[in-house]
This record gives sequence, C-alpha cells and structure tokens, in this order.
Amino acid sequence: MKPGAEIGLDDLPLRDDLRGRSPYGAPQLDVRYRLNTNENPYPPPPELVADLTRAIDAVAATLHRYPDRDAVALRTDLAAYLSQQTGVALDPANLWAANGSNEILQQLLQAFGGPGRTALGFEPSYSMHPIISAGTRTEWVPAPRRADFSLDVAAAAATLAARKPNVVFVTSPNNPTGQSIALDDLRTLVRAAPGIVVVDEAYGEFSSRPSAVALIDEFPARVVVSRTMSKAFAFAGGRLGYLAAAPAVVDALLLVRLPYHLSTLTQAAARAALQHATQTLSSVHLLAAERERVAESLRGMGFEVVPSDANFILFGRFADAATAWQSYLDQGVLVRDVGIAGHLRVAIGTPDDNDAFLAASKEISP
Amino acid sequence: MKPGAEIGLDDLPLRDDLRGRSPYGAPQLDVRYRLNTNENPYPPPPELVADLTRAIDAVAATLHRYPDRDAVALRTDLAAYLSQQTGVALDPANLWAANGSNEILQQLLQAFGGPGRTALGFEPSYSMHPIISAGTRTEWVPAPRRADFSLDVAAAAATLAARKPNVVFVTSPNNPTGQSIALDDLRTLVRAAPGIVVVDEAYGEFSSRPSAVALIDEFPARVVVSRTMSKAFAFAGGRLGYLAAAPAVVDALLLVRLPYHLSTLTQAAARAALQHATQTLSSVHLLAAERERVAESLRGMGFEVVPSDANFILFGRFADAATAWQSYLDQGVLVRDVGIAGHLRVAIGTPDDNDAFLAASKEISP
Repeated sequence: MKPGAEIGLDDLPLRDDLRGRSPYGAPQLDVRYRLNTNENPYPPPPELVADLTRAIDAVAATLHRYPDRDAVALRTDLAAYLSQQTGVALDPANLWAANGSNEILQQLLQAFGGPGRTALGFEPSYSMHPIISAGTRTEWVPAPRRADFSLDVAAAAATLAARKPNVVFVTSPNNPTGQSIALDDLRTLVRAAPGIVVVDEAYGEFSSRPSAVALIDEFPARVVVSRTMSKAFAFAGGRLGYLAAAPAVVDALLLVRLPYHLSTLTQAAARAALQHATQTLSSVHLLAAERERVAESLRGMGFEVVPSDANFILFGRFADAATAWQSYLDQGVLVRDVGIAGHLRVAIGTPDDNDAFLAASKEISP
Repeated sequence: MKPGAEIGLDDLPLRDDLRGRSPYGAPQLDVRYRLNTNENPYPPPPELVADLTRAIDAVAATLHRYPDRDAVALRTDLAAYLSQQTGVALDPANLWAANGSNEILQQLLQAFGGPGRTALGFEPSYSMHPIISAGTRTEWVPAPRRADFSLDVAAAAATLAARKPNVVFVTSPNNPTGQSIALDDLRTLVRAAPGIVVVDEAYGEFSSRPSAVALIDEFPARVVVSRTMSKAFAFAGGRLGYLAAAPAVVDALLLVRLPYHLSTLTQAAARAALQHATQTLSSVHLLAAERERVAESLRGMGFEVVPSDANFILFGRFADAATAWQSYLDQGVLVRDVGIAGHLRVAIGTPDDNDAFLAASKEISP
C-alpha cells in the first residue's frame, strides 16, 4: 500500500524549471569492479575502524543533544591537517565543514550567487557545479576548455573580464579530465575575476601542484578552496567536505548554513579519520603509480589518454562511448560515461581492479 | 596565523539581502539545566548505544565507498516506524530522509518554492520556516494567529484563498506555542490552499491528535508531513529528519537533493535508533505528565501558560522577557527567548531539571 501512488510528477505544483529533469547520479550497480565514482579503493584500515567506532561509542550517549553547531573541534583538526598537507599555516577560523563538498558549494552559491547572479565554469568540468547553481537559481555561464581539455588561461581571463561572473569555479585537478592548474595561472584568473573564485580541489591530494590555499592571504576576498574527504581520504561514505578561506567567508556561510547541519556522528567520525591521515594518504603514491601504469597500458592499446593529475583517467576515443560503457559493464567493470563524446572515465583502483579494467579494455577497440 | 583575517564581511561580494544579518541559533552555553532547544532529556539507553556502535563498526570498513544515495533501507525502517506510530500503512516510496528536517524543508522549498513563489506560515511559529524560505529565495508571507496563539481556521482558510501561496506551513504541535491542529481543520486549510501544505510534525509524537499522514491518500498532490528524530526520538545529535508524502513528492525531491546527502554513518545509526523506538518513546508519556505538572506549578505562581501538546511550554508574562531570560541563566537554567513579547519557552526536562526550573521561576516574578 502506497498512499498517493496514483499521482505522478506532472500532478504536482513543481517549479517549471524542474519539469522534465532527471535526478543526478551515476548508476549504483552491484558490480565486481566499481571504477565509476573516483573512490579510494583501499578500505579504512582496522586501526581506523577501531578508533572511529570508539569515537562513536564515546558520543552516542549524548545523541539526545544537538551537535556543536559550529563544529569547532573538527575545524581545528581540519586546519591542522590542511596546514600540514599544503604547508600553509591555517587557523580553525579559516576552515568550514559540511555534508560533502556539494553542501559547501551550495552554501557558497547561496551566499555569493543566487537569483540575478552568475556562476562560470570551464567545461567539461564537475557536473555538479551547474546543477548546484541551478538549485540555488544562479545563472550558469559555461566557458570552454581547449579541445585537449587543458585551460587556455589567457582566453579564460579574457572571458572572466568580459562576463564578470559573481562566482567562478576552477577545478584542479579538473574532473573529469584530470589536469591541474599552476598557481601563477590561478593568479591570472583571480585578478581577472570580479567575484569569488572557488578552487575545487576535491582531488588535491593526488596532485603534485601546490594548493590554492597559498593564495588566500594574497586574495582574501576572492579565493576559496573547497576540499573533500571523499577521495584521497577514503571517506566517501562519511560525507565530509570542507573549505579554506578568509575567516570572513566562513562568517558569510554562517548566514546561510542550516543550523546543526553536521551531526555529532559526522564530527566524531571525521576527527577519528583525520587522526589516521598519514596512513590513509600513503595510498596516494600507490594510486599515482598505478595511474601511470594504466595510462601507459591504454596508450599501448591505441587509446588516447588525457594526462591526469588525479585518481582517474579520461580516455578514448570510442565510436560510441555508451556502447563501450556497456561492454565494460558486461565484463564486470563499471566505468563512467561523463557525457564527453567518444570518451569514458575510469577511476584508478587496486592493482587487481586495474588489471581487470585493462583486460576488459583489450576486448574493446578504441 | 589566520590568512585573510584582515578583511570582514563588508569586504566580500555578498548578496545584498544577507548584509547586516546575524546567524540563526540559540546560544550553546555550558549550563547545568539546558531547557532551550526542546531536546529529549533522556540519553539513549546503553542497549541503544551498544547497537548503534555495533552498526557503525559493521559499516566503517566500507566508508571509502559512497553511501546508498537513496537510503532505501533507512526509508524502509522509517516507513515501518511511522506506519506503526500513526496507524497509516506507508510504503518506503512514501518516505524521504535528510540531515535534519531543516534539510527536508529546504528541499521542499527548492522544488515547490523559490524565486517568484511564496510560502506562508501562521506566526508565531518555527522561526526556521521564514529563514529557509529566504535561503531558497521564496517570498515569505506571514499570517497571524489569534492573540492566544491558537489558529483561527476560518480566517486562515480565507487568507490562503486570497494569498494563494505556493507552499503553506502548518506546524502541529506548533513551535513555540504548543497547540496542535485537528484533522478536520487541516482538511479545511488544505482545501483552501492552491499549493502544497507542509504539516511540520516535529513534535508529533508528543501529541494525542492523529497525524496528518492520514490525509496523504486524500490529498496526494497537496499534503506533505515532515518529521524529525531530534525531539521525542532523542536523536538530535544524529540529525535525521524525514517526510511522508505521495511517492511523486519524493520523486520531486530527488531532482533537488544533493547526491549522497545522507552519510553511511547517519543511515546506519538512524536504523539502529529506530530499532529501539518503543523504549525511546516510553519517555514521551513521562514528559507529557511532567509538562502538566510544570504547567500547573507555573499557573500556581501566577504565570500565564499557553496550553501545550508538545514537550515545551510557552509562558509569561514578563515585563521584559530578555531580563527574565538572564535571571534564569543566572540560576543555571537555560530557557529560550523566542522573540514573543513578555514570553519565554521552556523545554520539559527530567523531573530534576523541571524542579530546578520551577525553583528558579519562584525567584522571577511574572
């Protein structure tokens, strides 16, 4: 029995701009080799599981109380981690956290975007940027990358000067193409941008480039760096995104965040995971080495491989990417069709995952 | 060292409508008797803590993977609980969950409100309704309650017919005043409303009135019931809000929800807590009895007490509520100044909490 099951979406007083749309999301299929959402393939080690469980046990008896609304202890730990990881000394006042970097980006757009304002990104890039812009009624302005998916910085700066977007997204390393941006190029973009520049470093730990957090003190009213524990940190299921910015930016987000948005469980679990940062991130070098091995093997099979600074590879060209995606799936390998003609994206997994992917690739002509 | 600390909010390209605003939120003070946020004063029992910790331990090794994006298992358990609690048979397709009912309400406004649309509520009511409306750029239309805070249903229906809001909030029991609404009165409002009617039943378990979920099958395109595990369920720190509605309403929210919004930890912990529903909710009767004792005692001291169907009481009248609030705090009792002239709101605590509150009340003249 499903009360109300006789009506459909068209019977609801839905906003017109949502009509005909489909929900975002990669298929969640039960496949042996899941290489479609750029997760870290290495599970949390037993010591991390034990510490996390202990941390939850310690707070569970307080769950009848609301969490710390400002997540001060967690932000302190994030500041320590990010200072150590980037070499830029940060204070807890520079940090903010939310349920995944998607919520971070949504809060940024609520504060700095919204109706009558624009957000610009260089496509192809993270597909949630335009979706979250739409969700906050921020007009999306797509700007191009070169045919090889690299960023033409001079052209990009000219576009920013001409279009004057309120929010600019620069994804580095860029998802789904893999290239990262140098700090000097970022400076050029920030100088040309009239509004804020959100540097989305979801895959930052995989890159050898310096983090954009180095630019916060130089451009405090402009540069915001978003990060996540979902990728290198092997904590996608814990949903912890964060940002580093001038303290005033954090103050701005306090005006739009839903109160008590981060649960006591999330705060405690993320802190436990951060204690094991060194161990978790030891997989980064292994994944980078595997990325080079996979790229080389793909090239050897005649595929085109886009140079990547992240834990995934965009490759092609296929006569038809959708057909190739299905061929991989038929061989038990789930990759991602990101909607770029002739290309698919594969996450770097364990050596075993990658061998399975490469074996399947041999059966699929580029 | 705080990079960017030299700039303030005024130096940022913030939206104009956010300028001069202050963040929402009751003070989080370390006071012995915390009766300001309507939490259940009884901590989760040891058996629940043990089950919850076991549940987290069982999923922690999968945290490198994204959570179930549609939270099917949790929605199944919520459907079973709500069916049992309300006597209305519900299917998992009728349920949706998010990080607190605030996120549920935000998603509803993103789908059914937004720029060019209006949301109406009967004030005083839950102060987050206008705030989340503003956050989603939905124009807020306040409508009055009677001087005694009860709802004049005929007048309310006339207002709905005249103002034609896209979204109507009916809070039952109403926060911060305590009264609930009868199903027939709700029918009158739903018939007068052109858009959706969100019945906010955050305090539903404390009320003896039937839940509005009984109306979903009668008005599938209109009635949405939001609920939370933060209050009766003693799970405020777990941040789990949910709704019951026609399956098409859930389909609509899939278009606006951030993907993977609910962590693996939240889903597992909430399911563990739901297994202990009977035990947790046994406190509801005790709290209702204490509510009557506190109300009676306050009346005996000369206070005016608004009749309450929830786990809090609005009372007065004070010459100056802010001064009275401080007097309580000085005696170690944290109550809530909800901005209603001459009134304060107190949550019902343990008998010990309530005795402390009543002792403090004796020192404060109404």
